[in-house]
Amino acid sequence: MEIQIEDMVDFARGAAFLGTGGGGDPHIGRLLCEQTLRESGPPKLIDLDELEPDANVYTIGMMGAPTVMIEKLCALDDAELAVAKLEAHRGRPADAIMPVEIGGMNSTVPIAVAARRGLPLVDADGMGRAFPELQMVTFNVYGVPISPFVITNEHMESTIIEARDAKSAEDIARAITIRMGLVVSLCAYPMSGRDARRTAVGGTMSLALEIGRAIARGRKQGDPVSELLRALETTKYYKHCAILFDGKIMDLEREARKGFSIGRCRIAALDGSSSEMDIVFQNENLIARQGGKVRAIVPDLISIVDRDSAEPLTIETLKYGQRVKVIGISAPPALRTPEALAVFGPQCFGLDEPFEPIETLI
Amino acid sequence: MEIQIEDMVDFARGAAFLGTGGGGDPHIGRLLCEQTLRESGPPKLIDLDELEPDANVYTIGMMGAPTVMIEKLCALDDAELAVAKLEAHRGRPADAIMPVEIGGMNSTVPIAVAARRGLPLVDADGMGRAFPELQMVTFNVYGVPISPFVITNEHMESTIIEARDAKSAEDIARAITIRMGLVVSLCAYPMSGRDARRTAVGGTMSLALEIGRAIARGRKQGDPVSELLRALETTKYYKHCAILFDGKIMDLEREARKGFSIGRCRIAALDGSSSEMDIVFQNENLIARQGGKVRAIVPDLISIVDRDSAEPLTIETLKYGQRVKVIGISAPPALRTPEALAVFGPQCFGLDEPFEPIETLI
Repeated sequence: MEIQIEDMVDFARGAAFLGTGGGGDPHIGRLLCEQTLRESGPPKLIDLDELEPDANVYTIGMMGAPTVMIEKLCALDDAELAVAKLEAHRGRPADAIMPVEIGGMNSTVPIAVAARRGLPLVDADGMGRAFPELQMVTFNVYGVPISPFVITNEHMESTIIEARDAKSAEDIARAITIRMGLVVSLCAYPMSGRDARRTAVGGTMSLALEIGRAIARGRKQGDPVSELLRALETTKYYKHCAILFDGKIMDLEREARKGFSIGRCRIAALDGSSSEMDIVFQNENLIARQGGKVRAIVPDLISIVDRDSAEPLTIETLKYGQRVKVIGISAPPALRTPEALAVFGPQCFGLDEPFEPIETLI
Repeated sequence: MEIQIEDMVDFARGAAFLGTGGGGDPHIGRLLCEQTLRESGPPKLIDLDELEPDANVYTIGMMGAPTVMIEKLCALDDAELAVAKLEAHRGRPADAIMPVEIGGMNSTVPIAVAARRGLPLVDADGMGRAFPELQMVTFNVYGVPISPFVITNEHMESTIIEARDAKSAEDIARAITIRMGLVVSLCAYPMSGRDARRTAVGGTMSLALEIGRAIARGRKQGDPVSELLRALETTKYYKHCAILFDGKIMDLEREARKGFSIGRCRIAALDGSSSEMDIVFQNENLIARQGGKVRAIVPDLISIVDRDSAEPLTIETLKYGQRVKVIGISAPPALRTPEALAVFGPQCFGLDEPFEPIETLI
């Protein structure tokens, strides 16, 4: 399978939906990627079980405050440099590229890098969604070391880091990210095909494309949000899903702090009631509360879309007065185990509420 | 020539004097080094002109807030790891070790690492004193790139950095240092023997030993400060020197901020007059003012010593009520050129006063 140039609009849109507010701007991601696909052709998309056990799989992502990401000229050169630096450091060329997370930019940049390098792209990632911190991936949860990993920026500066664990890696990398310009490229979690098969969340790149196609189809049919939900219900991970709220953004606090986009957004009901939904985010949407009650909570997915077009809204594109629907979606099972919740459950974000699966909340 | 185990007390004391308040604690530096010299024997101390033009010279230092340095268990393992990482990264083993700066710890750690590795130690450094920031070395002033360079900490974590210039390297490294525990080891400015000969300040390790010996000799004779000044006057760099002030520390502001020890110290005259000296420091003493007039200014050296024993006082060991003498000393000529002043002249530290050589001020 390949992700063709004509798939890119749908793919980037679907990836942004799974990015739950983060993962980078799909428009920029798509533009970057289309240009590369025109030059190099699409990379081959392979399943996890097509990986040789001893293959060298390198994961790619961007790190930083997405608010800044859209204000910077982003190039693929630094992402490609990150891979090259890690290859040289380990003395092992990449056999395949895999995204760290699914998101508008974090899923498109790996496509472009794989295309440029003529390498296959693995149809998988470490979350099946987006998360704000480096340790928050199934690779780490299930025992793949993050180190050595590489950070690069648009000045072609690089750092190769060997940290004692993924949390320490995040601390060091965040400090570097802030000094290196608030947005950097990352090549991390170098792993064998065997480890990728054991720890990655499979099929998420093609799921992003399916989701984007459903939105496009729904637009033609006149009800994109319903079509989106219907499509989610047929997927292996995202089948528990519901519209949690239908309203208008009344209040928005959003700031670039500590290397993240942090804040909250309050949405008022359109039905004339006094009902409100409050969503807290750190690069990604973390919790949706209504009248003090939890409606959906991390690691389950909370995506905000335009209420008419179902366009997924990243945190940077949220605007006062915007009419939106909030959708809650079940996370892949690998994200809901006790080990996983210890790494990216609600308490890892300073939330008081325990995790409750969306299917028991709706 | 060798620096023997029985030289270490004098050597560390002399190095601390040239460290002008910074460069690390000489007592800890000496203890670390003595233990290694007992195990490995002393390294061979070689002159710059003994270096083969194509030799691989690796410089070593520590980075961070000295205030924290003395509160941490410091090991040589991380300094040795930094060298090993840079060797592996460049694919070129070290032929010689050179200190980045002269100071109580920054000159003793390189001795120990050279001893452990059985490598010669170059009798030179990049300052002939200590400075707080990575770009503030003659290597950088005269065109040797800092990158690639390595930072390691006591957890054996490492980062290999390639920055576009030495100032950017400092920015990135400072952020890493803060996150990696406020004190780290550094292997930087990998250079050829040819470049070392062209850019380093030669003979400073043996000068540190000479200075330490003069203090010891002076103590036996009963007037260590005078003997120290007599010895300085015979050196090729430090011959312009004078006691700037004789007094008692009346006020001391010192804090760990932005990865440095920053503050000031006010010294009142002992002669009953209302005369006062004010010294501002950032890891190292930067400027000595008396009655609003500059008495000595960076890059010239300002060292504070115990008024009776001539024991050099690092910024961390300054205490309220301590009786001290302040000594101003000429910097090596390579530190006083326009290019050099652009990198570590007074304006680089936010001072308003222009550089004036100590010999015109006294």
